Amino acid sequence: MKIPEILQIETPHSPGSLASVLNVLADRGLVLEHVSSVRRDQDRTLWEITVEIDTQAHAGLVERLNALPSARFIGWSDRVFDRHRGGKIEMHSRVAISTQQILRDIYTPGVARVCLAIQAAPEEVFNFTYLGRAVAIVTDGSAILGLGNIGPRAGLPVMEGKAALFAALVGISAIPILIESGTVDHFVDVVCSIAPSFGAILLEDISAPRCFEIEQKLRARLSMPVLHDDQHATAVVVLAALMNATRQTGARLDSLTVGVIGLGAAGLGIARLLQAHGVKQLIGTDLRAEAMDRLAQMHGSRDSLEGILARADAVICTTGAKDLIAPEWIRPGQIIFALSNPDPEIDPTVALAAGAAIAADGKSINNVLCFPGLFDAALRARALGFTDAMLVAAACALANAAPPGQLLPDSLEPSLHERVSQAVQAAVLPTAQAPLGAGGTPESPAL
Amino acid sequence: MKIPEILQIETPHSPGSLASVLNVLADRGLVLEHVSSVRRDQDRTLWEITVEIDTQAHAGLVERLNALPSARFIGWSDRVFDRHRGGKIEMHSRVAISTQQILRDIYTPGVARVCLAIQAAPEEVFNFTYLGRAVAIVTDGSAILGLGNIGPRAGLPVMEGKAALFAALVGISAIPILIESGTVDHFVDVVCSIAPSFGAILLEDISAPRCFEIEQKLRARLSMPVLHDDQHATAVVVLAALMNATRQTGARLDSLTVGVIGLGAAGLGIARLLQAHGVKQLIGTDLRAEAMDRLAQMHGSRDSLEGILARADAVICTTGAKDLIAPEWIRPGQIIFALSNPDPEIDPTVALAAGAAIAADGKSINNVLCFPGLFDAALRARALGFTDAMLVAAACALANAAPPGQLLPDSLEPSLHERVSQAVQAAVLPTAQAPLGAGGTPESPAL
Repeated sequence: MKIPEILQIETPHSPGSLASVLNVLADRGLVLEHVSSVRRDQDRTLWEITVEIDTQAHAGLVERLNALPSARFIGWSDRVFDRHRGGKIEMHSRVAISTQQILRDIYTPGVARVCLAIQAAPEEVFNFTYLGRAVAIVTDGSAILGLGNIGPRAGLPVMEGKAALFAALVGISAIPILIESGTVDHFVDVVCSIAPSFGAILLEDISAPRCFEIEQKLRARLSMPVLHDDQHATAVVVLAALMNATRQTGARLDSLTVGVIGLGAAGLGIARLLQAHGVKQLIGTDLRAEAMDRLAQMHGSRDSLEGILARADAVICTTGAKDLIAPEWIRPGQIIFALSNPDPEIDPTVALAAGAAIAADGKSINNVLCFPGLFDAALRARALGFTDAMLVAAACALANAAPPGQLLPDSLEPSLHERVSQAVQAAVLPTAQAPLGAGGTPESPAL
Repeated sequence: MKIPEILQIETPHSPGSLASVLNVLADRGLVLEHVSSVRRDQDRTLWEITVEIDTQAHAGLVERLNALPSARFIGWSDRVFDRHRGGKIEMHSRVAISTQQILRDIYTPGVARVCLAIQAAPEEVFNFTYLGRAVAIVTDGSAILGLGNIGPRAGLPVMEGKAALFAALVGISAIPILIESGTVDHFVDVVCSIAPSFGAILLEDISAPRCFEIEQKLRARLSMPVLHDDQHATAVVVLAALMNATRQTGARLDSLTVGVIGLGAAGLGIARLLQAHGVKQLIGTDLRAEAMDRLAQMHGSRDSLEGILARADAVICTTGAKDLIAPEWIRPGQIIFALSNPDPEIDPTVALAAGAAIAADGKSINNVLCFPGLFDAALRARALGFTDAMLVAAACALANAAPPGQLLPDSLEPSLHERVSQAVQAAVLPTAQAPLGAGGTPESPAL
């Protein structure tokens, strides 16, 4: 697994001392990400050199560096762990509680009148609490990233990462909710029982096939937006990227043969949204029969791994299997999206060298591009649920926001998430808007 | 219900114009809290006058003001509602997500390594997530303040008030969890199912007797700190106030007769902690037989309302019944704590005028004095649960922090909560500390 790490290396003030260090790193196949001199003493410099490195595969590197006549390895500075230390999110008070007067207004006795106002008119809860900006990020830890069933607490850093992005990008207060894995019905019951605490629910990193049943049952029972991120948010970004990829290759989405390799939550979500948006030729494969059955329900057809590479104009991989795709299988002009994180099914540069017209991985095709705007829109519009129209609106907004020649925009571009949110809000049907407690389900096409 | 409200009144620049307004307010029995001139025009001034006012009882006030020759009522400025607008809490990112590099560190792909580190060593979750600072504030809305069963969403402003105080006073991230009222076992199961999301659990505003069973079952099932605020945090503050009250009157706690009126969650929690700290003579009353049974289990004896006033040296009321205590029942030298919010059983000034040595209400005897420090300590010490020793340590710290002649310290005094936390941490038994997943229960006396 390649993660950025920082080497701390000391060199004397002699010509070529840093060059000799960089040569060693080059020999090991390591790509530099950043170099900085963090301290200059009288006779030597301390460098921090950031490289992408497979932590399992740097055996012997330290010895090689220390064998140099003009370099000394000092240590690793693990920036990634440092950035997670103490957690990435924190609840704040929006009121500066500086006087007893303020305390009495926001707590007892003042708060009592606000409670009574909400009791009298339940929709006031959206005006006088944070509910209309509160999203639960719910997981059972059964499919954390590509790491598998590592349990909900080991998955908490991912949930916090999402919550930090919600806060930073659209000002949504997102709360990680970790549920020990149990039956589907138990999971659904627990989520429904705490649902009054939130304005919307994001399901995250739940394994297939239970994720399908969980989402379906939650949508049936709750009159609020519920979205399984891995199925639908990833699908939105893939659809956006495919819109721009076909613009570049001159193909049409409705005459494209799309191959989906890996039919878990992400793969099936992608297949479903592509079909909903007009893709007619869909072929797929997975090792699991159950996943193939689901593809058949969508009227997609099955094929072998090599068969898909041989037939498809665009290939989308979500298997979690590193280097699954051999370069010799790539056909000239193909579109290849190898989405598994952290290690793609084929490195985009390798795919391009093998003849692909366009290749991308999960670093660029990332659902951070759309989940903030989707939830911001659903909450602001008081939607009763997500619809295909909302997902497609998000994909179009993303595709149109990409700079010329790029598949997708920069996820940190300041206005992007507001732009996505506006497009999605416009796609919320009036019938899908209703005050709290009015019940009913959206009449727009269900997911 | 008396809540501060702001009247906006315009007067000409003529001597006595404001005085005439204040005279009208005085005639209505309204106490001034604040007066300010918010705008001065050429010929008149706009005043904002803050009064404590019963919103049900100001009929005719506007007419009286407008009948004055030199005043015009402009409107009400409702500061309390303004302070709740949009909610009182907000989740923040602790990391400024300003570059793609940072995004890749805190989200995919970087986060994967942090997840694996926690999977390999579960206690690392306390180092690399916010878990060790995260508290769930759980309610079913069945006993919100003195307002009764108004439902969990109408109670959300209270939970947010507590969360805002946690954030502002000790930097704890507290999350309101609202559960629709159901059976005790269902409630317990839901809380246990989401417990991995948090480092500790605060039960809030749950009605008696279900609150007792819920807390007991949660303690038995969870190896983490669980506290029902209304029972135990209120009891800590009452014990602290009673320590200082008896210092002032010269009485000894162990020879004091204490009467507890109202045997709900707060009343029984108070009775229990006072007994645990050496109070031997305990009498109580409640309208409900079930509550009386619980008192009997503690070897407290029952008496009538007037009987308790006639016998007790200290009387503690938690009934929710406004003006329950007639002034003529007060005996000279008595200690009277009338704790119901927002309206006490007897106004402290009335009780003092009737001969009480010391009288206080729920505004000063408020659990905001202790819940932040209790939870801060339990989380920092990684306690497996709260013990009586921890509660008594908090009460002693509070009593000692009160300025001379006062029952309790100021809840916004900057160092107070740190001081309480230090005292409570010192009372956590080593056997009650354990890394996550070690299981077991604390060997110190259970609550």
